[in-house]
Parts: sequence; structure tokens; C-alpha cells
Amino acid sequence: MPQLRKDPVTKRWVIILHEEAKQPGDFKVENPMRHGNKCPFCPGNESMTPNEVMSYRNPESLPNQQGWEVRVIPNKFPALQIEGDLDRTGIGVYDMMNGIGAHEVIIESPGHDDGFQNYSRDQIARIIRTYTDRYRDLKRDRRFRYVLIFKNHGSAAGASLDHPHSQLIATPIIPKRAMEEVEGAKRYYYYKERCVFCDIIRQELSSGNRIIHENEQFVAFSPFASRFPFETWIAPKEHKDSFGDIDSGEIDGLADIMHGTLRRLVKTLGNPPFNYVIHTSPCGEHCTDYYHWHIEIMPRLTKVAGFEWGSGFYVNPMPPESATKFLLKNGS
Amino acid sequence: MPQLRKDPVTKRWVIILHEEAKQPGDFKVENPMRHGNKCPFCPGNESMTPNEVMSYRNPESLPNQQGWEVRVIPNKFPALQIEGDLDRTGIGVYDMMNGIGAHEVIIESPGHDDGFQNYSRDQIARIIRTYTDRYRDLKRDRRFRYVLIFKNHGSAAGASLDHPHSQLIATPIIPKRAMEEVEGAKRYYYYKERCVFCDIIRQELSSGNRIIHENEQFVAFSPFASRFPFETWIAPKEHKDSFGDIDSGEIDGLADIMHGTLRRLVKTLGNPPFNYVIHTSPCGEHCTDYYHWHIEIMPRLTKVAGFEWGSGFYVNPMPPESATKFLLKNGS
Repeated sequence: MPQLRKDPVTKRWVIILHEEAKQPGDFKVENPMRHGNKCPFCPGNESMTPNEVMSYRNPESLPNQQGWEVRVIPNKFPALQIEGDLDRTGIGVYDMMNGIGAHEVIIESPGHDDGFQNYSRDQIARIIRTYTDRYRDLKRDRRFRYVLIFKNHGSAAGASLDHPHSQLIATPIIPKRAMEEVEGAKRYYYYKERCVFCDIIRQELSSGNRIIHENEQFVAFSPFASRFPFETWIAPKEHKDSFGDIDSGEIDGLADIMHGTLRRLVKTLGNPPFNYVIHTSPCGEHCTDYYHWHIEIMPRLTKVAGFEWGSGFYVNPMPPESATKFLLKNGS
Repeated sequence: MPQLRKDPVTKRWVIILHEEAKQPGDFKVENPMRHGNKCPFCPGNESMTPNEVMSYRNPESLPNQQGWEVRVIPNKFPALQIEGDLDRTGIGVYDMMNGIGAHEVIIESPGHDDGFQNYSRDQIARIIRTYTDRYRDLKRDRRFRYVLIFKNHGSAAGASLDHPHSQLIATPIIPKRAMEEVEGAKRYYYYKERCVFCDIIRQELSSGNRIIHENEQFVAFSPFASRFPFETWIAPKEHKDSFGDIDSGEIDGLADIMHGTLRRLVKTLGNPPFNYVIHTSPCGEHCTDYYHWHIEIMPRLTKVAGFEWGSGFYVNPMPPESATKFLLKNGS
């Protein structure tokens, strides 16, 4: 079973995988998850994956067979395991717990070569609806403190299979970065009695020079302190702390703005490797007043040197105002 | 002039470079700093670099000519600029300051193909002595709050030139990760009245299953909550908050343990890309009692997916106890 371990100084949790029994040479292999020529995520190969958790599919088709539009499966190589109770222990200065959690894969489309360059708004809406279905289901599990939904696109962004997919990890702890955001937002709220994200959105809309896309419900912008070239955030205009509280009108609005924004990124940068992460409030924390869910999109154009994550100090050679201009030149 | 910008939620500072005027296509170039076939860091090519800040050299040789063993130059493409006063401003919710700082390159050896696989203990001691000379000099500058010394080795670790070198960035702010460590160590000290790093070192030496190397003054170990396969920390046994307070006996001890530890990493992993970062106390902060300087070495064997730095949540497929065993098999 994987193990969760806490760094005693910074309180950062790490998942340590034990069962794989890797050798030092194993890390030179570039794509350890290739399955010959057969893609396990393609229609017709459903038997190559664990049984599906859910799917959007033709009502006449059967689970784990062809006929789906979006399909969710447990990760075959999970970072955390769903079965068991939480067991917290300590040895001297160190704290740990067993690696309980969920690790699922959202196969975004039957088309092996599909992606945000050709997804319709409807397909994106189905993907978002799948995210919310799984989010709401896992949030009910009392063992979990956070549900992390993210996408790695392209090998440089950490994807090990080409077929378009996102992932979901439900964790029994709150990831460090999520906690920092919640605490930062709380400090701001106690000082100003306003949501910091609402203030950011208001200021961005009024200054306008970092706005990439806007519709009735959402705004996409290059953040003022972008860590990476062409980093882009998408946030709902209406204050809501939890991604799980998105309603069906908002799902359409989000599909529209993701369609527009990611197409611009793909066109401007030539289908770059990228990641996105949905930032939402932790399960069971009361942060309705001050937290504000959003999506952070990070194209992977520069190499992040070790000092950047060793120090938390980023150097970005592309001012967000210039990135916005380049993106606006490429109409969606 | 570069600009320092603060994320209003997490208080993370980012350096935004303005003058480069990059185009989106510029990020596809892998090694933008190649200078034809001539290496600007090789002896005989001294005129290709800015004038040296200092060097260890043959006393009969002249500055900016051949005859050096270690040579320090200002970075030709600095992330921060040394000239000027700090100017702090804000616009609405956002805070920023002009990009004042120092950015230097430490050329570690005249040999283009040298590295920790063949450095003598004496050469490593000279490199460390150079680090301390520059550290102490820059710490005196009242504009700077932190002096960050790090090495990127190999293209995958962010190095843009092959010739072995380290870097130094002096910043007018305290990098986020450094601040987190200082605050974590302070919390522990107030709770236990002991230094958390001293407790870690004591526990590691007593359990022994993560110790890679040890001498009179230093210990090298795989940290309990390693983020990366073969992550290795080196810490002084004697409690000292600042790297700048290292004495000449300790420089020899550190050279010895870096010689042993980095050779083991190179042998076990076949000259892997890696980074190391010297973690020390911020300038002008009084954290003598509870902070403890150390070096974190991070081999770059796995791709860090976006969710890992989006969430601060790492998955490590190599338990540190197993990493230690592999490293101990390869005697230095």
C-alpha cells in the first residue's frame, strides 16, 4: 500500500509508492506505460482497463463496451488505494498515514487524436459534467479532505499515454498549495472583508490588459504574477468556493470559455504540452465567504529548474500583458 | 528592468523579464544560449563573458585571462539587476517592486567536461570557498533579504550551458520556500524548544536506514518525505543557521561529503541531471536558535507533472530507504 509522509519542517505531504520495487535504471525509460500498439483508452479496448466507474454513453450500449463519449475508470497504477480505513502513525519527529484515496482517469473522448484543438463545446461540457459527477460523489466520502482534478497534456507535461484524458485524485489530507491558497484568502478576507479573487477579477475586468476571454459567467486572464509564459486562469464571476456547486448553466459557460481559451493557446503555441488544475475548496472546511474556485492552466514551454521549486521563486520571460496580446491575435 | 510581482493570494513572488520581447515561437528553441562552437566559460574565451567578480587563480595570471581554477562572473542574461534603489509600488490588489538583485555565475572548473564525477576534494573545497566569499559579500548589501546558491546540471535540470557552473541570485525578498521553512522551524522550536533539523539529524543517525554518508562535521541522508527518487540532503551536525558562518574546517568536511555523496549519485544513476540548492537563513532575520542551514540535492529522473507544482503534492515511486540501499552499493 502507498504511504503518505509529512515533511516535519514545511508540513508538505508526499505519496511514497512501495510496491513497485523500482531499480535505479528504471527511471531512464521514457514511456513506461506503452502497451504495444494498442491504446487501452481507445474504443474496442475497454477490457484492457479496470471496470468503468461511470460513463456518458449511448443508452443502448453496455458498460465496458464501445458506445461511450466520456468514460471514467480507476487508474490501473493508482497513487492511492480506495479500500481501507485511515491509519495515522508517527515515529519520533515523523508523521505518516497509509495511502488511502481515489485515483481515477477521465477518458475525455473516444477519438485517440482528439483534444482541445477540436473538441466541440458540447464535448467539453460533457467532460466538465463528468468532473462534477465524480467530484460530488467523492466529496461525500468522509475519509477525503480534498478532490484534485487535473490534466497533463503531452509527455513534457507528465502524460504517459497520448489518448486525451484527465485525472482525479481524492486525498485524506489537504495538499499544501490548496491550504496556502485557502489561508491566504482567509487572511485577506479578515483584513478587507472581501474575497481576494473577487477583487482580482474586478480589477482585471476594469484594467482589461490581461483579459483573454469573457462570457456572462466566466473570465479568462493572464495572472498578474504569472509563473510561466502564457499561464492562464479561468474564474467564475459569481463568488462560489466549491467547484462542486457549479450549476448546469455555468457548465455551459465554462465549456464555452475553455473552448475559446484553450483553442487560443493551442493556435498561438502550436499544441503545446500543458497542465490544468481545478482549484476548489477543501472538503469539510467552511470557507464559503473567502475562497473562490478557479482553473489554472500552465503551458509547459520552459524547463523549471530545480531552484524554482527548491525556492518557490519563479523567473518568467514572458510578461502576462504580452502573452495576452499574442493570444488575442489568434481568434478562437 | 525586470520586475518583481507578488501573487496576492499566496504571497509568492515572481520575476517578470520585460526586455527580452520574446515571441511565442521562441520557447520551442531548446538551447537559446549556445554560442556557436565556442564555450564562453572555457579558458581562453574570458572576453566572451562580463568582467569577473572574483576568481581563484594562479597569482601570476591576470583577471579575465587564463590561469583560474574557479571564476565568478555576472550572469550575461541576469534575472535581476544590481544597479539602483528598491522601488516598491502597488496597483489596487497587486504589489510589485523593481527587479534589483545580483545574478552571478560560478564557473566551477576550467575543464569543460569536468563535474562531480571527477572533481577532487580540493576542487570542491575551492568551489565552496567561492560560494562563501560571494555569500558574505552580498549579505552585507542592505537591499538584499536572501542569497540563493544553486546548481542546475544537465539540460533536463535547466542548465543552458554544458560547462560546469553554479549560480547565485541575491533577492530583495525572501523566497516563499525559504520563508516556509523558517516559519515551520520556528513553530517547532516554540513547541519543543529544540531545532527541528537537529531532531531530524539525531533521529536519522540513530535509525540509520536513510544515511548515505557521514563524517565528523556532516551527514548526508535520504529525507523521510523525499519528493523525488534519490533526493538527498546534506546537513551540518553542529547547529548553525547560516551557510555564511561555515569555518574552514567545515569547508573541508563539506567538500568531503559532497565528493562522496555526489559520486555515489553519479555512479548509481549514470550522470543524471540534477539540481542542488543551499538552504540558509534569510539576511537580517534573527533565526539563530531554530533554523539550520543544509543542502538539498534533487536528481531529475521523473517528470514533474503540473499537478505536482499546482498542488504541492508529490508522488515518489522510490522509497528513500530503497534509494539509500542502492546508493550504498556504489562505494564512493
